[in-house]
Amino acid sequence: MQPFVYTLAVEATPPSLQDNTGDIDRLKKAITAANGAVVSIPFSRLAPIAARFRKYGFKGAAVINDLPSGPRLVDFLAGPPRILPAMALDLGTTHLEASLLNLVDGRILARGNRENSQIEFGADILSRIHYAAKDDGLSRLHLAIVATVNELAADLALQAGEKKESIRALAVSGNTTMAHLFLGLDPAQLCREPYIPLVNTPDPFAAAEIGLALHPAAPVWVMPSIGSYFGGDLISGIMASGMDQREETCMLIDVGTNAEVVVGNREWLIACAGAAGPALEGGVARMGMRAGPGAIEHVEIDPRTLALRYRTIDGGKPLGLCGSGIIDLVACLYLARIIDIRGKFRQERCPDRFVETGEGLAFVVAAPQDSAGGEAVVLGQVDLDAMMRSKAAMYAILTTLINQVGLDFTDLNRIYVAGAFGRHIDPRRAITLGMLPDLPLEIFQAIGNSSLAGAGLALLDRQNRERCLRLVGKITYLELNVNQEFMIRFSGSRFIPHTDTALFPSVPVFD
Amino acid sequence: MQPFVYTLAVEATPPSLQDNTGDIDRLKKAITAANGAVVSIPFSRLAPIAARFRKYGFKGAAVINDLPSGPRLVDFLAGPPRILPAMALDLGTTHLEASLLNLVDGRILARGNRENSQIEFGADILSRIHYAAKDDGLSRLHLAIVATVNELAADLALQAGEKKESIRALAVSGNTTMAHLFLGLDPAQLCREPYIPLVNTPDPFAAAEIGLALHPAAPVWVMPSIGSYFGGDLISGIMASGMDQREETCMLIDVGTNAEVVVGNREWLIACAGAAGPALEGGVARMGMRAGPGAIEHVEIDPRTLALRYRTIDGGKPLGLCGSGIIDLVACLYLARIIDIRGKFRQERCPDRFVETGEGLAFVVAAPQDSAGGEAVVLGQVDLDAMMRSKAAMYAILTTLINQVGLDFTDLNRIYVAGAFGRHIDPRRAITLGMLPDLPLEIFQAIGNSSLAGAGLALLDRQNRERCLRLVGKITYLELNVNQEFMIRFSGSRFIPHTDTALFPSVPVFD
Repeated sequence: MQPFVYTLAVEATPPSLQDNTGDIDRLKKAITAANGAVVSIPFSRLAPIAARFRKYGFKGAAVINDLPSGPRLVDFLAGPPRILPAMALDLGTTHLEASLLNLVDGRILARGNRENSQIEFGADILSRIHYAAKDDGLSRLHLAIVATVNELAADLALQAGEKKESIRALAVSGNTTMAHLFLGLDPAQLCREPYIPLVNTPDPFAAAEIGLALHPAAPVWVMPSIGSYFGGDLISGIMASGMDQREETCMLIDVGTNAEVVVGNREWLIACAGAAGPALEGGVARMGMRAGPGAIEHVEIDPRTLALRYRTIDGGKPLGLCGSGIIDLVACLYLARIIDIRGKFRQERCPDRFVETGEGLAFVVAAPQDSAGGEAVVLGQVDLDAMMRSKAAMYAILTTLINQVGLDFTDLNRIYVAGAFGRHIDPRRAITLGMLPDLPLEIFQAIGNSSLAGAGLALLDRQNRERCLRLVGKITYLELNVNQEFMIRFSGSRFIPHTDTALFPSVPVFD
Repeated sequence: MQPFVYTLAVEATPPSLQDNTGDIDRLKKAITAANGAVVSIPFSRLAPIAARFRKYGFKGAAVINDLPSGPRLVDFLAGPPRILPAMALDLGTTHLEASLLNLVDGRILARGNRENSQIEFGADILSRIHYAAKDDGLSRLHLAIVATVNELAADLALQAGEKKESIRALAVSGNTTMAHLFLGLDPAQLCREPYIPLVNTPDPFAAAEIGLALHPAAPVWVMPSIGSYFGGDLISGIMASGMDQREETCMLIDVGTNAEVVVGNREWLIACAGAAGPALEGGVARMGMRAGPGAIEHVEIDPRTLALRYRTIDGGKPLGLCGSGIIDLVACLYLARIIDIRGKFRQERCPDRFVETGEGLAFVVAAPQDSAGGEAVVLGQVDLDAMMRSKAAMYAILTTLINQVGLDFTDLNRIYVAGAFGRHIDPRRAITLGMLPDLPLEIFQAIGNSSLAGAGLALLDRQNRERCLRLVGKITYLELNVNQEFMIRFSGSRFIPHTDTALFPSVPVFD
């Protein structure tokens, strides 16, 4: 275990006429004597380190950043600290999630989250890339995200009884566009063919260099990307799942704005990404929402009585449907024969459950009097169509990828499902829809916010940092936008569960 | 030859859908392919480098800083430049001297010098150390020297038809106090027992970090010191003389504010320093002055007729005496028996050449009507006494040191004499005074401003930079302030040429 920042107890012989070595050189020698490391020192840290080394009587604890270019001495303390706080950050397009880790023992000191304040400049990645092209646009986006990170850091520090300036390191995991905006780098090429990032693997830098109000010498680790559509969040996901270290072949599915999928093992990894996400994250349906208070995450419909029950995340009155709620609902509607295999409403099954809206027919999940907002929670045909496209895209991505490597779904030892989607989804329902392959349920494993978890892993051990640098060179990226096979498979997947019902033996088929 | 900054021609395959590697990562790969170097990039240089790499069609010349911690990519040019300017700087207490080198071919593009603007805060090292202890004192001294260096850089750039922002590197050689003030580091411990520098060997840093108006990523190399009284200027001197690479044992004498002496060869080096300087640099005598226009650098007195002739450095009327002029004068006064072996005036030899001044008797070198200032150029008894102490200290330093290593002066293959002192001094006259040992004249070799020359060597080749880092660990420093032997030898040297005249067979002895 070599954390991103560590301390080393050192005790030097005090200076004398017989040994007139300079303070800084004396300290460097003592460090080399203690653990063999030959450290360099950033210029801005020379004076404070020398002053503290002298003040503490030439003994104490050296604070060292463990960088790929070598160990870097950044501070000197009176003695080894009990707590060395470091921040792991999932830099989402809409939402930031962070944890404060103690690098001394690996324990979590605090957790927090915050809305991405860049939203005022654009709700999605593409609108932000366009905004960045305006005068000052990039700078505004950069300053906004740095401000959000600083607020989140202050939150975490407060919870842990620390100051934000005592946060000694940061690891950031986000999609490629978010990483560019965080670094203040022009994202223009990310959305232009051939979709080239300005940088995949930035060298670590000091927090102060981008205006982060952590310890000024806190090193910042940005999870590397392998392309515009495959960011550091996915590298984190692979690390958190551990699939890159397993002998058995596994799959990782991360549904955010895009659906990103990786298949492989410790020998090889192949990845692709596609626009399957919005509906699944609750972003497309009119009543769709993030998994949070008031979100319906689970739905049951009795196929005989058609009685409907739902559960919100917080147990309160419903406001809308999150991704897993929509999947549950649509699967149940299918099993209750309220929608047909093409995903079209069969109003005649229960006419009183339907209403006409400005956008056409909609199925009522919760009546106005039962909802938190006083407005009915509904699923419209428009939402349903979007859902059908998303689920078709997802299954097409999965089959194209698995076919590409000459395997069958049954060859997979495990399918890791990342993110809020993975946490709330019921795989049985996703199989019913034909979105996930018809495999035994124990194959599916939710791994939570693996973007955040991967950032934490990078903070805690050099082996993980080296591992994510190696991953960049190890992953083969399959471009689906130019893939004919994907388009064919997409068409075949636009039925429930599929045009080829033999692929889903566990799902009942109705005429 | 690996200069401190070099360029590398690179040509990368342009990005495509088949190869979506990020711009920066593409460039790094191309560099590694070209010369095997794995470069890191300072955060602040990411955006400009990426922009230029793309603008120039993914080919051109990478600008790389060759740092001890590894190669660092700092810029990208359209093609290999003809000129890559770098500044070598001798950071003197009173005077700065600099040259602009072309790192492409090692040639000198320009030379310049400037008074050290810190003089307004204190004329000598000690007064500046005291000034630094005041409120804002250190900061004022730091800003003053940075401003002087910036002006000098602008001078050099102008001469060479370049901008100062195009100066790609700086190597600085100065005494330990000047190095601290240049770096903005507290020099307080330098003049307090046990005389400990804050740092001996600072890691290279970027010019912008201390407000230098060179290229912002220009690496700054500060010649390491081995103690308060043995600075980077001496390390430069050793390098410029080459004595650290020779099989034969040699000696280096550098007379500045102090007299600093090194003896040794490629196997070992021992050094000491002592306060022998001021009189020799023209700093003590009332009419003393730096070697420059109007300074009498050479004097002859006919021992029979007592006729006196002198020569000024510029051939014009005299203003005062520089160090070599004083040495010449005192040696001639002794040979003409106008002073005795104790260094006291014998007024009776030529009463008309003497005047009474407020400070006592003085010998007239140039009458008022012959001088540039309209005031007689004289040497007073007070000046003479100071000169005697200086020459005694010098010889005592040399003999203490040579004795310490169990050698005799005749074991020396060469005595290098550095600085303005070395350039102008006539070794024959210094021997007459008993200041330098009585050796064949060809043993003595003037090496000019070796502080500046050493800085240039560091700029031009990595081997030299590694060499000066090794020198720090190789030199044994002999502390004279606590040395009994030195005091005894000092007393014995307070006669002309010496109490033990057998040591100076070539010098005539009078009664």
